[in-house]
Amino acid sequence: MTRYFEDLTIGDTHTTASYAMTGEEIVTFAERYDPQPIHTDPSAAAESFFGGLIASGWHTASVCMRLIVDALADSAWVGAKGLDELRWIRPVRPGDELTVDVEVVDKEPSSNLTGIGEVRLRVTGRNQADEAVISWTAISLVRRRT
Amino acid sequence: MTRYFEDLTIGDTHTTASYAMTGEEIVTFAERYDPQPIHTDPSAAAESFFGGLIASGWHTASVCMRLIVDALADSAWVGAKGLDELRWIRPVRPGDELTVDVEVVDKEPSSNLTGIGEVRLRVTGRNQADEAVISWTAISLVRRRT
Repeated sequence: MTRYFEDLTIGDTHTTASYAMTGEEIVTFAERYDPQPIHTDPSAAAESFFGGLIASGWHTASVCMRLIVDALADSAWVGAKGLDELRWIRPVRPGDELTVDVEVVDKEPSSNLTGIGEVRLRVTGRNQADEAVISWTAISLVRRRT
Repeated sequence: MTRYFEDLTIGDTHTTASYAMTGEEIVTFAERYDPQPIHTDPSAAAESFFGGLIASGWHTASVCMRLIVDALADSAWVGAKGLDELRWIRPVRPGDELTVDVEVVDKEPSSNLTGIGEVRLRVTGRNQADEAVISWTAISLVRRRT
């Protein structure tokens, strides 16, 4: 059963599985994509504003994306146009466990792409203490029923 | 010479080095963080809306971040609050070469953090044909001179 544009309702909410962040993965990601000492060097990070190693914000977002893809694999995603208002709300540290809540907040047929609808999804990632660590509004494209 | 909040001027622009995207890296990133067939499976991707393998948008953004970190390593970054209006403008494909333009578009002292200023950076990633592929406005925190 594939979920198409017509099957998504404003107000629908989904909660994903969770993902354990390790210090090793935080450092590996950051060495390639965000090599700042707060993400790659535990002792430099301990002396920083954050008081210890924290995940790159891009890493946190990418982990949330993985959780969303797994949770909503049955929807007819085409791709995404972009996102608005991404905020890194709290640091993510080794040992944190992330879970994502996704809510359909708006939908409309695409103005320029035939057979496709635009869906806005409010995404909130939270840690094991239920504190929000990241949020954004995704602008996703979903196939319509033909 | 570290660049502090006071040393950044609205209108300053920087162009980064460039980064070659390979099919192997596109698939490796996506298998972990965005396992959709358009990012992980060249033959399924060939049949898709995009006509071939394309990079995860999070991968494209992360590569741009790497270029920015390398180009602006001499600035006193503290972290980032978030970003606004991220758009994935064109697909990024194996063999593409990405370069990023960064412009300081706004700055003001932080309203709640002592010794820190908030700087808005307009970020545009482009490919080897000089076509924009991604853009966003970053909200970064930079240390002030004490």
